[in-house]
Amino acid sequence: MEQKVEVMQSIYDKNDSIAKETNEDLTRRGIFAVNVMGAPGTGKTSCIRNIIKQLPGAHYVVEGDIESDIDTENLRKIGITAVQINTHGACHLDAPVLKDSLKKLQFEKEGTLFIENIGNLVCPAEFTIGEHIKMLVVTVTDGSDKPYKYPLAFEKADIILLNKADLIPYVDFDEEFFMRGVHALNPKVNVFKVSAKAGSGFEEVTKWLIEKKKNFSV
Amino acid sequence: MEQKVEVMQSIYDKNDSIAKETNEDLTRRGIFAVNVMGAPGTGKTSCIRNIIKQLPGAHYVVEGDIESDIDTENLRKIGITAVQINTHGACHLDAPVLKDSLKKLQFEKEGTLFIENIGNLVCPAEFTIGEHIKMLVVTVTDGSDKPYKYPLAFEKADIILLNKADLIPYVDFDEEFFMRGVHALNPKVNVFKVSAKAGSGFEEVTKWLIEKKKNFSV
Repeated sequence: MEQKVEVMQSIYDKNDSIAKETNEDLTRRGIFAVNVMGAPGTGKTSCIRNIIKQLPGAHYVVEGDIESDIDTENLRKIGITAVQINTHGACHLDAPVLKDSLKKLQFEKEGTLFIENIGNLVCPAEFTIGEHIKMLVVTVTDGSDKPYKYPLAFEKADIILLNKADLIPYVDFDEEFFMRGVHALNPKVNVFKVSAKAGSGFEEVTKWLIEKKKNFSV
Repeated sequence: MEQKVEVMQSIYDKNDSIAKETNEDLTRRGIFAVNVMGAPGTGKTSCIRNIIKQLPGAHYVVEGDIESDIDTENLRKIGITAVQINTHGACHLDAPVLKDSLKKLQFEKEGTLFIENIGNLVCPAEFTIGEHIKMLVVTVTDGSDKPYKYPLAFEKADIILLNKADLIPYVDFDEEFFMRGVHALNPKVNVFKVSAKAGSGFEEVTKWLIEKKKNFSV
C-alpha cells in the first residue's frame, strides 16, 4: 500500500509540474483555457457549442473521450477547430496527455481553449491539466443530491452550469437543496441555469467568461 | 511507468482473489449478489427499490458513495437492510472494501444482495468485487451515444436498465442507435426500459433476476 501511495504521489507531482508549464505557455500565447468537467451525458459538448456561438475571439476545443470521436466530428462539421484525445480506458485527462494533444493546435489567434474532460464526476477533479478555470456541467435530471455525493468536483469548480433546465417541469429537482450543497462546498461559485437544447441561459455564462478572461490577460 | 504498471497488476491480482473468496462465501450462504453500476444520477437506488418490492426472498443492500449516506438512510426508512460504504475519494468499489462491509451484514435468510457501486460509468467496470452478475443502469436523458463513448461498462453488463423512460417524449433519444451500440459490444445482453419514478417496467426485470437466481443456486 505504501508503495502505491509513493507511486501515486510521484504521478501527481509530475502532473502538476507539466500542468504549470502548459498553463504558462497558454497564457503567453493569449489562450484562456477552460477545463470542462461533468458526468457522462450532462451535455458538455453542447454547452461548449452554445458558448462558442457568443464568445468573441478564436475558439479551440480538445475533446477527451475514452473511445469514439463523435463529438469532435460534430464540432468540426460546424467549423470549430477540434482535436480528439482518446484515453482508451483512463478515467480522466492528465497534464502529459493534454500537453501532447496541444502540439496539434496552432493557436494562430488569441482566444479560448475548451478542454472537454472524460465524462466522470469523480476523477477529473483530482487533476490540474494546465487550465485557467474549471467549468462543471451538471443537470437537473441527475438530481439535487449530487454536491453531497460528489463534493470534490463542486469544490474545485470556478463556474457551474446547471443544464437541461428545460426538463425542470418533468423531474423532481429540489433547487434549494442543490444550491445549499453547492454553497456549503464552494461559497462564491457562480451557478448558471442553462438549456443547451433550447440554447437558453448562455448570455450570462458568456458575460462571466469575458470578465474572467479580462483578468487573465492583465 | 513500468513501476506503475507492476503496482497496478498486483492490485488487480489481489482484488480478484478476494472477489473470488467473497463470491464463494455468498454462494454458500445462498446470497445472490448484484453489482449495480451506472453514472451519477441514473437512478441506481430507485431501481433497486423498485426491484426489491417485487423480488421474493430476503434483500440486502450495500450502498457505495464517495461521501454521504442519503441513499442508505432512505432505504432504511422503508425497512430495507442497508449498509453504507464511503470511499472518501475512491472512484469505484473494490473487493477488499466490499469484503470488509459485508462483516456488518448477518444474512440470516437466503436472498439477494444489491451492491450499489460509486456513480461512475468508467472505473467500476474494471473491478470484480464478488458479485454473481453486473447490472448497468443508464438513462434516456444521458443520450444514445453512451455505449460508443464508455464501452467497457456495456461490455461487462449482464443486464442493462434503460431508466427514465417517462422522459422519452421530452429528449432526443435515438433508441435504434443506442441498441446498435449496445449489441455491438454485448450481443446477448438483455436491455429493459424502465421508469423508476413511475415504477414501470420492473416486472420483466424481476422475472429475469428470478431466472438468473435459479441457475445460480443449482
